[in-house]
Amino acid sequence: MPRQLCIAVVGATGAVGVEILKVLEQRNFPLKSLRCFASSRSIGKKATCFGQEIAIEPLNEERLEGLDIAIFSAGRKVSLEWAPIFAKRGIIVVDNSSAFRMDPQVPLIIPEINAVAMAQHKGIIASPNCSTTIMLMALAPLHRAFGVKRVVAATYQAASGAGAQAMLELELETRAYLEARPFSRTVMPFPYAFNLFTHNSPLLENGYVEEEIKMVEETRKILADQSLRITATCVRVPILRAHSEALNIEFSQPVTKEEAYTVLQRAAGIKIFEDRSQNRFPMPIDASGRDAVFCGRIREDLSQPNTLDLWVVGDQLLKGAALNAVQIAEHLIKEGIIQLSVAPLVAEAIRRTNSGESISSLFTYPRQSAINAAVFEDH
Amino acid sequence: MPRQLCIAVVGATGAVGVEILKVLEQRNFPLKSLRCFASSRSIGKKATCFGQEIAIEPLNEERLEGLDIAIFSAGRKVSLEWAPIFAKRGIIVVDNSSAFRMDPQVPLIIPEINAVAMAQHKGIIASPNCSTTIMLMALAPLHRAFGVKRVVAATYQAASGAGAQAMLELELETRAYLEARPFSRTVMPFPYAFNLFTHNSPLLENGYVEEEIKMVEETRKILADQSLRITATCVRVPILRAHSEALNIEFSQPVTKEEAYTVLQRAAGIKIFEDRSQNRFPMPIDASGRDAVFCGRIREDLSQPNTLDLWVVGDQLLKGAALNAVQIAEHLIKEGIIQLSVAPLVAEAIRRTNSGESISSLFTYPRQSAINAAVFEDH
Repeated sequence: MPRQLCIAVVGATGAVGVEILKVLEQRNFPLKSLRCFASSRSIGKKATCFGQEIAIEPLNEERLEGLDIAIFSAGRKVSLEWAPIFAKRGIIVVDNSSAFRMDPQVPLIIPEINAVAMAQHKGIIASPNCSTTIMLMALAPLHRAFGVKRVVAATYQAASGAGAQAMLELELETRAYLEARPFSRTVMPFPYAFNLFTHNSPLLENGYVEEEIKMVEETRKILADQSLRITATCVRVPILRAHSEALNIEFSQPVTKEEAYTVLQRAAGIKIFEDRSQNRFPMPIDASGRDAVFCGRIREDLSQPNTLDLWVVGDQLLKGAALNAVQIAEHLIKEGIIQLSVAPLVAEAIRRTNSGESISSLFTYPRQSAINAAVFEDH
Repeated sequence: MPRQLCIAVVGATGAVGVEILKVLEQRNFPLKSLRCFASSRSIGKKATCFGQEIAIEPLNEERLEGLDIAIFSAGRKVSLEWAPIFAKRGIIVVDNSSAFRMDPQVPLIIPEINAVAMAQHKGIIASPNCSTTIMLMALAPLHRAFGVKRVVAATYQAASGAGAQAMLELELETRAYLEARPFSRTVMPFPYAFNLFTHNSPLLENGYVEEEIKMVEETRKILADQSLRITATCVRVPILRAHSEALNIEFSQPVTKEEAYTVLQRAAGIKIFEDRSQNRFPMPIDASGRDAVFCGRIREDLSQPNTLDLWVVGDQLLKGAALNAVQIAEHLIKEGIIQLSVAPLVAEAIRRTNSGESISSLFTYPRQSAINAAVFEDH
């Protein structure tokens, strides 16, 4: 019997927060209680999970009693301020923001790829950038099987990565365009209806935008390989919620497309999805609302030996954010590495002892099977 | 005084055909007469150019008298059948289709890049694939300056490449999506509203689509360099009329981004367009309706020496098709290599001789200046 946990979702009203609540419900997460935090703008609103309405609470140190895990998806600033406060109280933080991803003390986790790295956590575990996660679901198994030397990535990123308001703005602006009405943008920096632009993260001195550098640095950290060579061009396209990526991957040895398909067919969390007779490969609408990352169109690159092109599409809100965070929380349970809130545990142990019940179940968790570990680690 | 020419536009009612008529007018092309041909579906319609209505004619061998140049944009099948018939009559065909592009007898021309190759024409001159042209406007000057070894291209292609009906369908389908109405597609193979998919050209045995192979083979032909290594991923995105491309370019020597900017600033037909303080790089709406190909975001690739990333956007209907074809026709005049229709010329010479006028202007054309030739050839 898995222990049931007291979970907090911080940023519960955002695009990712709403998905976290849905994912907890769909996966029948062993919840004892669920608390929803958001900024003061959302106070008075209600969230919904497991058919119950949950009041939105403001972040406040006095409200953190009894929590086991907090999933943060309220942006970098909130995470920087609040995640350490939660962690100090023994609440494990699973952080969707970029705040701690490159902190050497913080594991950066995609459970299918590097769940083992979770064990070293010190109270905060980071969930990677969405484009990075979607790329790595295909890249990591191939890297483990064949050794990746260099990747050239081009992304086709959806509005959802910029939040629920950006998705709404894309719809409203497109409607205005079609009706030849003027439109005032408040979220995106440039016209988005039937238009595309360089990813709207800060431009760095070297000409890369932050999103692109995340794909480089987070990949190296997750795969624990600083020698990996990656360049990316990140582009915001007028799509609602799934990111697509064209990956050109050079390996350190010859790899046929059949070998790559075989590895990806066996990999966890990725789905080969194509019908070559119809020139039908993964599209954003295929992956939207789906847990799996969709992959296909593996080609042997005509321009260079030992190189494959492939195409990958994943729901930015799910595997790119909410799902991955919830999976991290699930693995904390499975791996038995969740730091228990000591006070409620002791109280429960005393209660059980007094009533003659066994207390052993309080201290054991089903451990991930060796087979599962092999799936994650051997590719 | 430039000679005025009798021009035919074949496929005058299509997306590109309509643009050809506009471009002829905007550039004040030295037209003596303009004839518009289209399929039987369009008979009865009128085209408009220089404020005049022009009846659409069916293709018919008896209607080809007196033409100097025919610009074909009616698809591969019409070109395969009719271009040789026009050419046999001494009418120079400028063909926008893929029918003759890889024919060794047919020059494949982007005037800013390889106008000299036009001289070898045997009656048919091909205008390249739109994605190829837009890429090469940036790539060719860089190749000539520094020597390109390998290109990894990812495209973001607009509806216009699939024709006027595809542009309309994208608008109609998007409107239906926003109004939650069902929609029956007739042009595109897959949902296009807020969606994207692999370029809808035939998928080849090697996993590339034809569009991608065009980018490889046409580039090698235009740059007259079979050693060039190119791979491409072509994607149809929900954009109306300008194609964008992310290019990762490996050179055979070190090239700084400043050197690349300097070369492209001097190159004909390309415009550096960016404001780094605003993370503002070329977008489809910038290039739509514009002659120049827009370029920017040149970065030194962090993953590999001697490599630059750059971003290029061009109007698919203009430089990608109509404009390039009209420029080819202009160069035929400038270079003095147009094959005259002998009968009308002789008739005119007789008329002038009889009326005491000089006939010398009938046989002379302004030659392209040496300075212009240098712009096209030296980069």
